[in-house]
Amino acid sequence: MPGNTLGTNFKITTWGESHGPFIGLVIDGCPAKIKLDLKNIEKEISRRKPKENSKITTTRREEDKFEILSGVFEGKTTGTPISIIIPNKDTRSKDYSKIKDLYRPGHADFTYDLKYGIRDYRGGGRSSGRETLTRVIAGAIAKQILKKKHKTEIFAHTIQVGKTKSKKFQKNHIEKNELRCADPEASKKMEKYIEKIRFKEGDSTGAIIEVIIKNPPKGIGEPVFDKIDAELAKAMISIGSVKGIEFGSGFKVAEMKGSENNDQMQISNKKIKFLSNNAGGILGGISTGEDIIIRLAIKPVSSISKKLKTISKTAKNTSIQTLGRHDCCLAPRIIPVAEAMAALVLLDQSL
Amino acid sequence: MPGNTLGTNFKITTWGESHGPFIGLVIDGCPAKIKLDLKNIEKEISRRKPKENSKITTTRREEDKFEILSGVFEGKTTGTPISIIIPNKDTRSKDYSKIKDLYRPGHADFTYDLKYGIRDYRGGGRSSGRETLTRVIAGAIAKQILKKKHKTEIFAHTIQVGKTKSKKFQKNHIEKNELRCADPEASKKMEKYIEKIRFKEGDSTGAIIEVIIKNPPKGIGEPVFDKIDAELAKAMISIGSVKGIEFGSGFKVAEMKGSENNDQMQISNKKIKFLSNNAGGILGGISTGEDIIIRLAIKPVSSISKKLKTISKTAKNTSIQTLGRHDCCLAPRIIPVAEAMAALVLLDQSL
Amino acid sequence: MPGNTLGTNFKITTWGESHGPFIGLVIDGCPAKIKLDLKNIEKEISRRKPKENSKITTTRREEDKFEILSGVFEGKTTGTPISIIIPNKDTRSKDYSKIKDLYRPGHADFTYDLKYGIRDYRGGGRSSGRETLTRVIAGAIAKQILKKKHKTEIFAHTIQVGKTKSKKFQKNHIEKNELRCADPEASKKMEKYIEKIRFKEGDSTGAIIEVIIKNPPKGIGEPVFDKIDAELAKAMISIGSVKGIEFGSGFKVAEMKGSENNDQMQISNKKIKFLSNNAGGILGGISTGEDIIIRLAIKPVSSISKKLKTISKTAKNTSIQTLGRHDCCLAPRIIPVAEAMAALVLLDQSL
Amino acid sequence: MPGNTLGTNFKITTWGESHGPFIGLVIDGCPAKIKLDLKNIEKEISRRKPKENSKITTTRREEDKFEILSGVFEGKTTGTPISIIIPNKDTRSKDYSKIKDLYRPGHADFTYDLKYGIRDYRGGGRSSGRETLTRVIAGAIAKQILKKKHKTEIFAHTIQVGKTKSKKFQKNHIEKNELRCADPEASKKMEKYIEKIRFKEGDSTGAIIEVIIKNPPKGIGEPVFDKIDAELAKAMISIGSVKGIEFGSGFKVAEMKGSENNDQMQISNKKIKFLSNNAGGILGGISTGEDIIIRLAIKPVSSISKKLKTISKTAKNTSIQTLGRHDCCLAPRIIPVAEAMAALVLLDQSL
Repeated sequence: MPGNTLGTNFKITTWGESHGPFIGLVIDGCPAKIKLDLKNIEKEISRRKPKENSKITTTRREEDKFEILSGVFEGKTTGTPISIIIPNKDTRSKDYSKIKDLYRPGHADFTYDLKYGIRDYRGGGRSSGRETLTRVIAGAIAKQILKKKHKTEIFAHTIQVGKTKSKKFQKNHIEKNELRCADPEASKKMEKYIEKIRFKEGDSTGAIIEVIIKNPPKGIGEPVFDKIDAELAKAMISIGSVKGIEFGSGFKVAEMKGSENNDQMQISNKKIKFLSNNAGGILGGISTGEDIIIRLAIKPVSSISKKLKTISKTAKNTSIQTLGRHDCCLAPRIIPVAEAMAALVLLDQSL
Repeated sequence: MPGNTLGTNFKITTWGESHGPFIGLVIDGCPAKIKLDLKNIEKEISRRKPKENSKITTTRREEDKFEILSGVFEGKTTGTPISIIIPNKDTRSKDYSKIKDLYRPGHADFTYDLKYGIRDYRGGGRSSGRETLTRVIAGAIAKQILKKKHKTEIFAHTIQVGKTKSKKFQKNHIEKNELRCADPEASKKMEKYIEKIRFKEGDSTGAIIEVIIKNPPKGIGEPVFDKIDAELAKAMISIGSVKGIEFGSGFKVAEMKGSENNDQMQISNKKIKFLSNNAGGILGGISTGEDIIIRLAIKPVSSISKKLKTISKTAKNTSIQTLGRHDCCLAPRIIPVAEAMAALVLLDQSL
Repeated sequence: MPGNTLGTNFKITTWGESHGPFIGLVIDGCPAKIKLDLKNIEKEISRRKPKENSKITTTRREEDKFEILSGVFEGKTTGTPISIIIPNKDTRSKDYSKIKDLYRPGHADFTYDLKYGIRDYRGGGRSSGRETLTRVIAGAIAKQILKKKHKTEIFAHTIQVGKTKSKKFQKNHIEKNELRCADPEASKKMEKYIEKIRFKEGDSTGAIIEVIIKNPPKGIGEPVFDKIDAELAKAMISIGSVKGIEFGSGFKVAEMKGSENNDQMQISNKKIKFLSNNAGGILGGISTGEDIIIRLAIKPVSSISKKLKTISKTAKNTSIQTLGRHDCCLAPRIIPVAEAMAALVLLDQSL
Repeated sequence: MPGNTLGTNFKITTWGESHGPFIGLVIDGCPAKIKLDLKNIEKEISRRKPKENSKITTTRREEDKFEILSGVFEGKTTGTPISIIIPNKDTRSKDYSKIKDLYRPGHADFTYDLKYGIRDYRGGGRSSGRETLTRVIAGAIAKQILKKKHKTEIFAHTIQVGKTKSKKFQKNHIEKNELRCADPEASKKMEKYIEKIRFKEGDSTGAIIEVIIKNPPKGIGEPVFDKIDAELAKAMISIGSVKGIEFGSGFKVAEMKGSENNDQMQISNKKIKFLSNNAGGILGGISTGEDIIIRLAIKPVSSISKKLKTISKTAKNTSIQTLGRHDCCLAPRIIPVAEAMAALVLLDQSL
């Protein structure tokens, strides 16, 4: 039961280590005769990329030129598997030789050794965040198909960094600031906070992001075990660093009463209207057609330059500092990944 | 891609409507030569049952006598499918005739009609909480096997109802109070709150529960998509009424720094020790062997006697009151279900 | 990876031992709002039943009254799992006590012990042919749906028993003779042969049957690994006693030339016509719409009253005679099973 | 439910068209810490290759240099997905422009258009035999693991071409003649026959091959639907051109009696011995440990230079001749593919 495949109808299998020659993916089950918008795929890739001279994310440069090796003929999908590869460039493997025999706290180093008895220690190997690039590419294609078929729109924004919460929703501000926060004031505060803990403390910070799906396909999701929220939860939690997920009112339901939380319905202008959306667009595991609302808890980046206690492979006590070029707050880079996961689940279920 | 099957190696398929003659399940892949402890299964079933004269849960009486129809020979499992059925008794179907053509806010009525064009309106049919009984039975078997093989222990407790939070952890108090709260003081407060909103307001309340897994099998979980936390998230969110899940520090990570959140490691007495457990026992999607810690948001029961706006199948505006015998706070009854789901996922991954 | 589930969209899970109280199945993924024809299911069950006073099959009486426990509401399917059970009657378990510790040649006794270390020795337990009853029930439902949606008709006939081959195809003769042979003359010869080896020799005989699928859904089957013929082969070979399968020209292709075997095409009356059907209705793993033609090799019944060498569980040399009521030639009873498997695969792929 | 993935534990996903830039595969679930023998993979690839100046197979030159892009670190497998690509060289696409709008009899052209509404007409695209190269590579790895763990040996030979049957089994002759026939005399006859129908008649011929698996893992296979023979049947029939499969006595069982066909057992030198192997090493869908014996019917190559009637995409009657470099008898090239499929199924089931 290896775990590198997602989906049943629109099925992706991803592969590749952060410091190998390539990473890539195979999409099996993409509908035939779709004209792929390659520019749009590039755009999604660039949204995941670290910004140059960023104060928030790594400055590792990733060119991320993808190449389609199969499944597309004369510009259109043929229904056969689409194989895509992306070369890994700027992979300074030397950086990692020092930590070869150490377990970095908060990383998968320890568990990979526990499970496999061997690991590619260069940059996390397969457990590296680099793996999410393949998710973004598959997601870009899924988004294109959902948009055509259902007018579905998926976007996400950062709603909390440290103690600062977004209070205002100004959609067009999202892609205008590096943190992808919809609140211009909050975004500035968040940036300042990050600069401080990054450069003064050599530390990192957690965050919360919100994913909004407008016009999702209606009536998708399978009771009992394969509810659409269950599938989304699996997909989202499978993103490294995501430690929690909630739908609609989420954890706030603890303090709510049924009369508040139940979304009442009325007919208005011959259309069915829900008077609220505490359910986050899902009832009984099936989408109602209302916006699907998801929030994700993002843990602080594990690789920090602060010294931490750890052990070596030979079971000796020691300490570790992860220098090098690392992200400080993952929220803005996880946003396109989370959008991609949402698109992959929705498309898979709707085919 | 119908959704009534969970698991790959220890695979359960459940069936049955709340007001049909029986509900049941088939377990495929149960290891052979296991002596099942039937008393223990009964005990788990009774933990899910509403208490008599309860002020918190429904007073619908469920006898829940299960019968094993296959897969067990001379007291032991044979490796072939175990089929179990449980009769549905005390199914007052008449109660539901009034709401036959109405969509109850917060229920799956609307989405089942949307998806299937037909629904068994008696008590929610397949979307009823009654379906969780089969989860508890399968989970009881899974727990027995995990206990034998790995000494795994799984339990859960209520940590928040309304605004009242559990502050003390007194393990032996959990099964002593109806809410399964580990804090004797908080449990009383919670009970009072529930009595008030139930009997005075005809309303219901949400809650948060915490699931703790001690001695989980080590090194289980499959990167990239089938991480153990991803599988657990899917399983937990598939329980009706669960609107959020978090692992370890969960949503609190937003305010944490890497240096706080990273679980440092040290050797002590020749054993590997993690100095904290913010990760909740999982790194890179693989279990470390530390306690797995999960928290779940439980929405308030949808069926309340307060009048709410809704629509009919024929698209007319109307209102609805769900009288009858309903739970007010689901936390204590979801606890054995959540434990069962944890057991099912862990066993499935460890076989 | 337990093996009691077949299909992805129309998914059946079967359970039950030949001498347990019940056998049964769960169908998950049956389309909603289908009015099931119960009489027709009964008819298919009776086609699988041994004939009374038969000279060919067992005289074990099987009443086979099935009961639907879920998934059907007010006469129609609801899209939720359909659970069906059938009681096992006339299960003379005592007959089997003698062979409890012996491995019957040609049976699964030896391999079940090898795999599971335990087995239900009464009548073969799960490996008994009784298991096929659940396939026939599921198949009857699948046939009904295929007929409605695609006008698909599936039938099979016996084409060889011993050295006697069917030479004439008289369709209406098939269900008129116990062997289900379409050739009136051959059927008489076959019957005589069977009487002879059964009553004079205490032996059994093999056979070949042919399955014909008229108006199969067009364009189904998934290249590369899940070709429709590959799925059919798996389904058919999964029937106990089936030792070979061929499509269209089958093993005769060895002696054929490309120019003979290639099915040429022409337009005639504005319709596409294949001038022959050596491919058996399948090209590149996808159905063309032509008749799908399958032939199956059925081994002689293993349980015979002739004395055979064998060993005991304690590894001692001994011999065995299987007295009791056994079939002599399985062909006529496998015919409805094979038809059912064909229907299950085609429906699953076409949904 | 796209069909380009095989296996559950040792899971391969293949991709690529015959005339695209590359073909490739991803292996997910390969055990960790295996030292791959790359020379051996090359050897298996070369066994599938057409021989230079061959009179039997195509003279299309395939260099087939594979490259491993992930999942192997410092020479050993890491447990993460192994991605392998092979460039397509010598792809004279121009050859195919003429048949772009024609359906070649016996090919998948017609059904791909039927199913997808689009097809890569260059050399069959995804339905080309070139796809089997990825099977051979995955199979080579599977064979290596099976050999190490179980001493399993898998080989196959041609037993019939046209009317000529192999009568003698001289194992070391198999790889010494181009047809891979174990009978020196028969192999000469077969070759002559092929030369005749190829060069004089512009035609092709069918064949039968036999696959022998020595020391298969014992006790593998899952009753009821996932029997080891059922899985093998699916895998083998999924090879293009295979029109039939039989196990052990196969279609001969029709003429056999139970007393002949049942494999009797005895203890000899404290070991369990089967006195015959009509079952072909499988009882009740589970391997006994005896040799697994499989025979496959291979249809004559569809692409022949004889003129055949066909239709165009625009539904006009016409005729077609497939000139160019094509195989005449596929048996010798399918042999390594069939061996690979056997290895993939056995390894997958045994992990």
